[in-house]
Amino acid sequence: MKKLLLALALVPAMGSAQTLADRAPALRDAALNDDHLAWDLVEGLTTEVGQRLAGTEAEARGRAWAVRRLTALGFANVHVEPFDMPVWVRGEEHAEIVSPFPQRLVLTALGNSGATPPDGITGEIVAFESVAALEAAPDAAVRGRIVFIDHHMMPTQDGSGYGQFGAPRRQGPTAASRKGAIAIVVRSIGTDHHRNPHTGVQTFADGVRPIPAAALSVPDAEQLQRILARGLPVRMHLTLTPRQTGTHQSGNVIADVPGTDPGAGMIVIGGHMDSWDLGTGAIDDAAGIAITLAAADRIMEAGRPRRTIRVVLFGAEEPGGLGGDSLYAHHHPGDRVVLVGESDFGADRVWRVNAGLAPSNAALAARIGAVLAPLGILTGHGEADAGTDLGPWVRGGVAGIDLNQDGTRYFDFHHTPDDTLDKIDPAQLRQNVAAWTAVLALAADAPEPIAGLPPRPQRP
Amino acid sequence: MKKLLLALALVPAMGSAQTLADRAPALRDAALNDDHLAWDLVEGLTTEVGQRLAGTEAEARGRAWAVRRLTALGFANVHVEPFDMPVWVRGEEHAEIVSPFPQRLVLTALGNSGATPPDGITGEIVAFESVAALEAAPDAAVRGRIVFIDHHMMPTQDGSGYGQFGAPRRQGPTAASRKGAIAIVVRSIGTDHHRNPHTGVQTFADGVRPIPAAALSVPDAEQLQRILARGLPVRMHLTLTPRQTGTHQSGNVIADVPGTDPGAGMIVIGGHMDSWDLGTGAIDDAAGIAITLAAADRIMEAGRPRRTIRVVLFGAEEPGGLGGDSLYAHHHPGDRVVLVGESDFGADRVWRVNAGLAPSNAALAARIGAVLAPLGILTGHGEADAGTDLGPWVRGGVAGIDLNQDGTRYFDFHHTPDDTLDKIDPAQLRQNVAAWTAVLALAADAPEPIAGLPPRPQRP
Repeated sequence: MKKLLLALALVPAMGSAQTLADRAPALRDAALNDDHLAWDLVEGLTTEVGQRLAGTEAEARGRAWAVRRLTALGFANVHVEPFDMPVWVRGEEHAEIVSPFPQRLVLTALGNSGATPPDGITGEIVAFESVAALEAAPDAAVRGRIVFIDHHMMPTQDGSGYGQFGAPRRQGPTAASRKGAIAIVVRSIGTDHHRNPHTGVQTFADGVRPIPAAALSVPDAEQLQRILARGLPVRMHLTLTPRQTGTHQSGNVIADVPGTDPGAGMIVIGGHMDSWDLGTGAIDDAAGIAITLAAADRIMEAGRPRRTIRVVLFGAEEPGGLGGDSLYAHHHPGDRVVLVGESDFGADRVWRVNAGLAPSNAALAARIGAVLAPLGILTGHGEADAGTDLGPWVRGGVAGIDLNQDGTRYFDFHHTPDDTLDKIDPAQLRQNVAAWTAVLALAADAPEPIAGLPPRPQRP
Repeated sequence: MKKLLLALALVPAMGSAQTLADRAPALRDAALNDDHLAWDLVEGLTTEVGQRLAGTEAEARGRAWAVRRLTALGFANVHVEPFDMPVWVRGEEHAEIVSPFPQRLVLTALGNSGATPPDGITGEIVAFESVAALEAAPDAAVRGRIVFIDHHMMPTQDGSGYGQFGAPRRQGPTAASRKGAIAIVVRSIGTDHHRNPHTGVQTFADGVRPIPAAALSVPDAEQLQRILARGLPVRMHLTLTPRQTGTHQSGNVIADVPGTDPGAGMIVIGGHMDSWDLGTGAIDDAAGIAITLAAADRIMEAGRPRRTIRVVLFGAEEPGGLGGDSLYAHHHPGDRVVLVGESDFGADRVWRVNAGLAPSNAALAARIGAVLAPLGILTGHGEADAGTDLGPWVRGGVAGIDLNQDGTRYFDFHHTPDDTLDKIDPAQLRQNVAAWTAVLALAADAPEPIAGLPPRPQRP
C-alpha cells in the first residue's frame, strides 16, 4: 500500500507537469534515435520536385508541395507570402580549347551571366591568379580577351574559405568587364575534383556591361592551367546562352507552432526552398528546411510551447537573399521576434553552437550549451549570424543562434549537379534534428524574457 | 696495396658484369623513388591531346604525339600499324521526366547507341532489376516503352564486379530491342555517387534494330527508382543523337627496346591509346601506356636486354579490342613472342602478380614473385589474362603476366568525364613502374627459354 502511494506521488514530477524545457534532453535523444520526418521531407522535396530555381515554376511547385505537406502535418497558419523578383535562367553552355590543344572543357554559367551569340565567341585566354592581379593589369592586356581567374581553395570545417576564395566568382566578372574582356571563366569555388562545375550568383555592378561569365570544374581549371603552362597562346571558343526573363513571383512559405504566451515573443527558424538548377538542392537547402521543420514538429507533438515557433521556407535565397529581405521588410518590427536561426550549410553534423544572446540571457545560453554537449557540440564564443535569410533580424538587434554544421565536404557538392539526396547521411541528419529540437524546447519554453542586442548595420 | 687489388677484383661483380636480371631489385627501387617519365607521359598525353575516341582525329593526334615522344626517347622501330574500323560518335544527349515529377536526368549514350529524332522521343518507363527479368517479361509489357534496368554494384579490389554487373549495358540494349522497346536506359556500371554517367561499348546482335541506349549516372538511376517507387506511371522524354560515321582509320603505335638474342623471343607489353570521349582517358588508359613505356625506358637506359621488349600503344580497345585483334592477326605466329602483359586497370598500386608461365618456368615465376614482394605485391595463383589487347596471345598459347592493380576506386571514374589526370596518384604510379621494371629486367634477361602453354579457345 505504501508502495502504491509513493508511485502515485511521483507521477506529476515524472509526467505531464514537466515543462518542454525539462524534457529537452529526452526530446533530443528521441530525435537522435528515431527521427524519420527530416529524411522523408528532404527525400520528398528532392524527388517529387527536384531542382527549384528561384522565381521559376519549379520553385512554385516546391512551395505548393510544402503547403500540402505542412498542412497535413498539422502546422498552423500555413501560407505563402509572395514577392516579385527578376529571374535569370541558364541556356546552352559549351567551351572548347581551339588551340594549341583542341579539347572540350566543362563549365557552367554563373548567375546573371551575360550571353554569347548562339554560335559562341572565340578569344585568347589571359590568366590571373586573383581578382587583385586582374585589377592591377593594364586594360590593354585584357581588352578583347577571355579572362581566366584561378585560385586554390582548401576544405575548412567552418566554411570560412567561401568568403575569401569566392572573390573570383563574385568580383571577377565586374572587374573583367570594366577592363574590356569579352568573357570570364573562373575556377569553381569548390573543394572537389569532379567534373561538375559550381555555379553561384554574381551581380554586375551598376553601369557595367554584363559579359558571359562561367565557372570551370576544378579538373578543367587545372587542365587549363597545364595547357597555359606550355607557354603558347591559348584560344577558347565559348558558348553561353543564358537570359534574363523579366519579373516573376517567388515567395516564402510560413508554418507556425502556436505558443501559449503571445507576449513572450516569437522564435523564427528555417531554411530556403529555392536551389540552383543543376542538382536537386538536397544539401542546399532541402536539408535545412527538413531539419528545422522536423524539430518544430517534434515540439508540436510534445506539447504546446510558451513561444510561437515560426518556420519559414525562404524563396530566392540563392540570387541574394530576396526571401529573407522580403520577410524582414514585411514583419520587422511589427512581429515581436525574439530569437532567429537558419539551417543552411548542408546536412552533416552540428559541431558548434554560437548563441548570440544578450548578457542577461547567459543562463539560457548555458542551458543550451549543456543540452547540446552530449551530441558532441562545442560551445563557441562567436556571434550568431543566422544565415543569409535571417541575418537581417540579427543585424536589426534580435538574438540569434547558429548551429554550425561540419562544412568539410560541403563545398565538394555546393551549387553543382552533385547536390543530390545521396550526399545526405541519415544519421548526421538526425543529429541536426536532435540539436534543433533541444534548442527549441529550451528557448521556446524559457521562463525568462529573451532580450534584444544592440543593432548592427544592415548589409548594403 | 692489397686493399686496392681487392677493390679492383670486386669491380666486375658489382659493376658492368652484373646482368640486368641481377640488377632487377636496384632498378625496381630506382623506379619507385625517382621515376618521373610515367607522370610526364600521362600528363602530356592527357593535356596536349585530351580525349582520344577510337578512329577519330583525336586518336590520330594521340598516335602522332606518341611517335614524336617515343622517337625522342630513343626507342627503336617506332611506327604506326594502321587498321580500318567503323566509327560511332556521340551527339546531343538529354533526358527529362515528363510526369509525374518533371525534372532533368543526367545520362550519356552507350557505344553504338541508336539515335532518337532530333527533338527526341517520349515514352513510359518499364523497370527491371536485371537483364534476366527483362527477358522473362512478356513482350507486351515492353513494346513501345523505354526500358530501365537497374542493378547494384559494389567496389571490389580485383574489379570482378564489372563482368557480372556490366550485363545491363552489354546485353540490355539487344534484349530491349528484341522485345520492341523504343529505348533503354541503364544504371551506370559504376561505384561512385557523382552525376557523371559511365559510357561503354555495347553491340547490337546481328539483325537487331539499334535503339537509343544510354546510361544514367548512379544518382540519377537512384532518383528514377525513387520516382518509380511512388507507383505512378513515369514518362520520360529522351534525346540522343549519336551516329555511325562509316569507316575510318585507327592504328597501333609500336616502339622497341632491341634485344641481343633474336632467338630468345620477344616480350610484348603495352596499354591502349584510345579512350572514351567524356574524360581525358587518364586512368583508361594513358596510365597503362605511361607505366609500360617508363619501365621499358628504364631497361633501355640500364643496358641492352637479351630479349627485345616491344611496347604497343593499342588503338581502338574501347570499341572491342580492335587494335589487339589487328596486332595478333598480323604478327602471330610470325613474330616469336614468348611473353605478353598489358596494363589497363588504372594507376593505383599493383597488389598481386599472376604469372601465367609454363611449369618449366617455375623458377622464373619464383624470381618474379620474390622481386615484387618488397613492393607489397602478393604472388597469386591464377592464370594470366593479359588484358583485352594481349589476351589473344595468351589464349593462343603464349605465356602472360598480369600485374593486378587495385581496382577499389577504378569504377568510380571509369568511362566518365571524371577520368582525368587528378585521379592519378604519382606515388602509386611509380610503384607500377617499379613493378613492371623489375619484371622486365628478370624476364627479358632470363637465361632459360620462356616456354609456351596449351592454347585456349579465342573469344568469338
